[in-house]
Amino acid sequence: TDITHDEAFKALLAAKKKAEDSNVLVNIAVVDAGANLKAFIRMDESFLGSIDVAIKKAKTARYFNIDTGELGELTQPGGIIYNIEHSNGGLVTFPGGIPIKNKEGKIIGAIGVSGGTIEEDRTIATVGVASIIE
Amino acid sequence: TDITHDEAFKALLAAKKKAEDSNVLVNIAVVDAGANLKAFIRMDESFLGSIDVAIKKAKTARYFNIDTGELGELTQPGGIIYNIEHSNGGLVTFPGGIPIKNKEGKIIGAIGVSGGTIEEDRTIATVGVASIIE
Amino acid sequence: TDITHDEAFKALLAAKKKAEDSNVLVNIAVVDAGANLKAFIRMDESFLGSIDVAIKKAKTARYFNIDTGELGELTQPGGIIYNIEHSNGGLVTFPGGIPIKNKEGKIIGAIGVSGGTIEEDRTIATVGVASIIE
Amino acid sequence: TDITHDEAFKALLAAKKKAEDSNVLVNIAVVDAGANLKAFIRMDESFLGSIDVAIKKAKTARYFNIDTGELGELTQPGGIIYNIEHSNGGLVTFPGGIPIKNKEGKIIGAIGVSGGTIEEDRTIATVGVASIIE
Repeated sequence: TDITHDEAFKALLAAKKKAEDSNVLVNIAVVDAGANLKAFIRMDESFLGSIDVAIKKAKTARYFNIDTGELGELTQPGGIIYNIEHSNGGLVTFPGGIPIKNKEGKIIGAIGVSGGTIEEDRTIATVGVASIIE
Repeated sequence: TDITHDEAFKALLAAKKKAEDSNVLVNIAVVDAGANLKAFIRMDESFLGSIDVAIKKAKTARYFNIDTGELGELTQPGGIIYNIEHSNGGLVTFPGGIPIKNKEGKIIGAIGVSGGTIEEDRTIATVGVASIIE
Repeated sequence: TDITHDEAFKALLAAKKKAEDSNVLVNIAVVDAGANLKAFIRMDESFLGSIDVAIKKAKTARYFNIDTGELGELTQPGGIIYNIEHSNGGLVTFPGGIPIKNKEGKIIGAIGVSGGTIEEDRTIATVGVASIIE
Repeated sequence: TDITHDEAFKALLAAKKKAEDSNVLVNIAVVDAGANLKAFIRMDESFLGSIDVAIKKAKTARYFNIDTGELGELTQPGGIIYNIEHSNGGLVTFPGGIPIKNKEGKIIGAIGVSGGTIEEDRTIATVGVASIIE
């Protein structure tokens, strides 16, 4: 089971609307079950550096089926997977990347958001994820 | 002058509609005036390898302000810029990438399409470009 | 609005003069609003490794519109964006990279300096930035 | 013996003046005897894709102590060093890169120019090279 491009767009637009309502400028990426880019948008005036961060958050969330913020708790010095960020061409392990599940609870992709504070990014990503099972 | 995310989406959706009407499965990328990714979609069942090709077509078109197919005529063996594809982290120099101009004729970004035949990709890209000045 | 090559040279030469007056050997890079390289100089006998560091400092400053030293305070172990350096092909997040603004306060590019101590690099970068609005 | 930053700037500015006199928009890179970037400028409105091409032309010219256009004659299909462009992180083997010699005829660096036709690029590079021994 894989996210469709219609679903990817739905998640993207729901997240974008949340960002606009919150006056946050973000980049939003959606990857499919294969962790390949499915949909992307960069809002005007958002950070240039957030293009890659948003895409890497989405990929990281699907690579390990985990909220990137939770992963980051394990990658700190002394952590059990310290510096795993060096793998896979670069991971991003702070909040803003979340797996996307279908109504049956199966992971079908992931979303990554970058540009606001990490709390804002995570909230916006959550809205995108929720749109799929509404 | 730079393409807005609304314009990028407009071009993306116009190109996607053309692809659907033609029964072609493609990846579509739009970059801004700085050749940075602005919007992207991968249609269901389109080639996985076309993600990067579509993005590189869009970037190539903006890097040199040219239809990628025209560039490719110059990069053949014996051509004046043979093997320029090795620069800029990899260029794609066959049809499917086209600069996007605004109504004043200024280049504000570019679109790249990959997944169909090169004629189909170019036609779909052209429709995306045209949507901006309608 | 984008930095011109005359402005980029002005910033480069002002920074170089400050470096020479301070007997510090540095590499100096200026990028434009799109984070693309606009001007660069490597002073004789400066570190070879500072070429890439100077360029990455300038790019990082523009990617996130921030003094790279301020960014580095957030990327430490336990920091809110720990290990973001793995994104964008490699970021540099210690002092020496600063956004360049025009007289209206709009960011038009960034400068990166590497080769001295981080305090020296930051001071030299600051002189380059200041030259644009004098 | 290595090119100094003063010499690199001299070559850069001589080439830039030639480009301006010829109404050609180019990127100009100078590397030292170690093929490391020494000085760079991108003229306003020149191709974004020419940043990397100019740098790679300069490096290629020094890597093999040869005019990049001459190298390109050997890299064609059937040529003795076919597709050597794949080495060294990407070479550029059409005209516009030329070794820089001092008055004693020793190679001390190289210059790379990109943005005009290959003839224009080569001519502009030649002017930069000549400035060093005037």
